Amino acid sequence: MQYDNNNVFAKILRGELPSFNVYEDDKTYAMMDIMPQSKGHLLILTKEPAPTFFELSEEGAKACIATAKKIAPILMKITQADGLILTQFNHECAGQTVFHVHYHLIPRYAGQQNVQAHARVEGDKEEIKALAEALRHALAKS
Amino acid sequence: MQYDNNNVFAKILRGELPSFNVYEDDKTYAMMDIMPQSKGHLLILTKEPAPTFFELSEEGAKACIATAKKIAPILMKITQADGLILTQFNHECAGQTVFHVHYHLIPRYAGQQNVQAHARVEGDKEEIKALAEALRHALAKS
Repeated sequence: MQYDNNNVFAKILRGELPSFNVYEDDKTYAMMDIMPQSKGHLLILTKEPAPTFFELSEEGAKACIATAKKIAPILMKITQADGLILTQFNHECAGQTVFHVHYHLIPRYAGQQNVQAHARVEGDKEEIKALAEALRHALAKS
Repeated sequence: MQYDNNNVFAKILRGELPSFNVYEDDKTYAMMDIMPQSKGHLLILTKEPAPTFFELSEEGAKACIATAKKIAPILMKITQADGLILTQFNHECAGQTVFHVHYHLIPRYAGQQNVQAHARVEGDKEEIKALAEALRHALAKS
């Protein structure tokens, strides 16, 4: 699959669009999902121009997982979540909406029936901003 | 979280229970899900005694993703799928049913409305067996 340099995540990575970022290293970039399926829904982006998992290098995939390992326990602590879903969609029929590889970290809460639909409704910007700040702060200390 | 040595995946890894296995290396084990959410639903297990992603080592997580990189394109080819979901559940409220870390690779097909519910209904054993054999054969040649 061809990579489109003008997809929204490419623009965020180039600093052309804002994001509620929480962490960055040479291979990955983590930020809040602005259409959260659950409180604390976070995205880990590869920095490779890879539209799907199939074009992503093994090194790039491992880097995303290493970032997930770093962030996941802190995300659980900050959100006081009881569970966590890690997921990654490839191609439209699998629910992919932005064709730049990204992993979803979706906190789950005991008693919560279902998560919100994927990529549908914008969340509370103030809540998302506050979560991003708390996560960024905790990650900087970790 | 404490690891239970008698969970069903621990038994499969010790060879005490059968499985439709497709691939194995020193750190991971891949097999068909016998309650597939979609045709070709496959599981990649860590060989570490880790109940959730939080107890899994970074090396163990990277090994699972490396195995996913190896299997995913072959799974797409064999199943003729149009998309793929990679997912991993942690804790009961997030849908985890076996407390041994495993990644789901769920093929998706254009026009398919929704996947089956998670861990509910057994699939067609003959179809699963045939898929496992085709995958094993293709992976052995890769």
